[in-house]
Amino acid sequence: MKFLRFGAEGQEKPGLLDEGGLIRDLSGVIKDLTPDQLGAEALAKLADLDVEALPVVEGAPRLGVPVAGIRKVLAIGLNYADHAAETGAVPPKEPMLFSKAITSICGPDDPTELPASSTHLDWEVELGFVIGTRAKAIPAGTGLDHIAGYVLANDYSEREWQKDRAGQFVKGKSHDTFCPLGPWLVTRDEVADPQDLDMYLRVNGESRQKGNTSTMIHKVAFLVDYLSQFVTLEPGDVILTGTPPGVGAGMKPPRYLKAGDIVELGIDGLGTQRHEVVAL
Amino acid sequence: MKFLRFGAEGQEKPGLLDEGGLIRDLSGVIKDLTPDQLGAEALAKLADLDVEALPVVEGAPRLGVPVAGIRKVLAIGLNYADHAAETGAVPPKEPMLFSKAITSICGPDDPTELPASSTHLDWEVELGFVIGTRAKAIPAGTGLDHIAGYVLANDYSEREWQKDRAGQFVKGKSHDTFCPLGPWLVTRDEVADPQDLDMYLRVNGESRQKGNTSTMIHKVAFLVDYLSQFVTLEPGDVILTGTPPGVGAGMKPPRYLKAGDIVELGIDGLGTQRHEVVAL
Repeated sequence: MKFLRFGAEGQEKPGLLDEGGLIRDLSGVIKDLTPDQLGAEALAKLADLDVEALPVVEGAPRLGVPVAGIRKVLAIGLNYADHAAETGAVPPKEPMLFSKAITSICGPDDPTELPASSTHLDWEVELGFVIGTRAKAIPAGTGLDHIAGYVLANDYSEREWQKDRAGQFVKGKSHDTFCPLGPWLVTRDEVADPQDLDMYLRVNGESRQKGNTSTMIHKVAFLVDYLSQFVTLEPGDVILTGTPPGVGAGMKPPRYLKAGDIVELGIDGLGTQRHEVVAL
Repeated sequence: MKFLRFGAEGQEKPGLLDEGGLIRDLSGVIKDLTPDQLGAEALAKLADLDVEALPVVEGAPRLGVPVAGIRKVLAIGLNYADHAAETGAVPPKEPMLFSKAITSICGPDDPTELPASSTHLDWEVELGFVIGTRAKAIPAGTGLDHIAGYVLANDYSEREWQKDRAGQFVKGKSHDTFCPLGPWLVTRDEVADPQDLDMYLRVNGESRQKGNTSTMIHKVAFLVDYLSQFVTLEPGDVILTGTPPGVGAGMKPPRYLKAGDIVELGIDGLGTQRHEVVAL
């Protein structure tokens, strides 16, 4: 299933996308798409619904973050061999973990804020996954069982803040709107192979990133096992899995976003995002 | 005022410590000490209460995290000149930001988990502050206005995970129980000068850390202004401000925690914590 949340910011209602591409209103069934709705049992209950009987949402409402009440956003750096090469870094032997503040998350088509002091705003199309059941020091090979579904993400990064401002990546990864998620939470059963998904990103119509999750170094299933040794993963937690080549910092010369730019991105089966960059 | 939360994990009730050292039950007044209770208006309302009229809580109940629904834990690294020296690092010119997963927070006297694969578990007594009102790109000099109060914290750190496991500090800072907070949220008006507080930490009765917040490099008021340029601070967010000298990694030879160790720490006016280290 493809879950979503529609409506103005802070007033989103839960919904789903039916097979004909219509938004159906789920607010008569569940209060919201909260972490407690992401376990296997709750998802099975939702999968049993008669979708045709749910009210159709007319028009093209704004879409919000597809899961409410997210408490943690973790991310893996340099997780595509070819992206690591373009940044001049040696790919790490084990997953390189960083975090994004949860205040950075926003809807899939919300404008992207260009902070007044920002000069190096960069893009990163990424496959994200959302935890469905708690994972703490889980056995190797059981990672996928803890995933509720997948989500398209853009890991916006202010490169100067990230690298030249007394570091730790979190400083450049956490501004408001730096983590658009969605349009949908696509349940795990609908993604036959998370390691074979084409992905792209364009700026003002020009191709910038093109890749496939097959070149991911540390795979999704392993990431869940691995991370759960260091940090407990809870339902609703979002993990971003790294970006393929083509970021602005890797261009010669580097290119960054400016006000008015339009960023479009997508991943096979997970939908698309479109952001206008707006100066603060 | 000194706010606290008492009761078994997940079932805490709000309370306060009266001037005689008795716990008073606030659950008849507010549902919980949630972020919406931390703004100036809400705190003023609580300050007007007739404390003597509140029920006394008998016995010595477990204390929980003093604020419910915390959404973000940020921390500043190498923020005491003498601590930076002991780790061999040059103190950064501007605050070095990292984060801890919110699943790492726990009550002030809860046991500290020693993960099965951990060999370098270290301690860090820290002054924490809790945001009362939203701060986004606030003007310089207005930082203190956004602080609800202060809290004692231990920024437990697994040094091998933090530094030798394809880094970013968050990996070694985020295990369950690595961020005990409390016993109390002490409101800002009760801390005359946050930059003149003695602090200490002992392991098995032996002194390990001794310091005073006067040697903090980047001061509390500045940290709020500064951080708000990069990441929006919300009510309930916790910011840890760095640790004074005396961590295990700085000892010659380095010493780390083992199962059965007792860690005790305190800061002037903010109370004390006591943890037993337990093997997982």
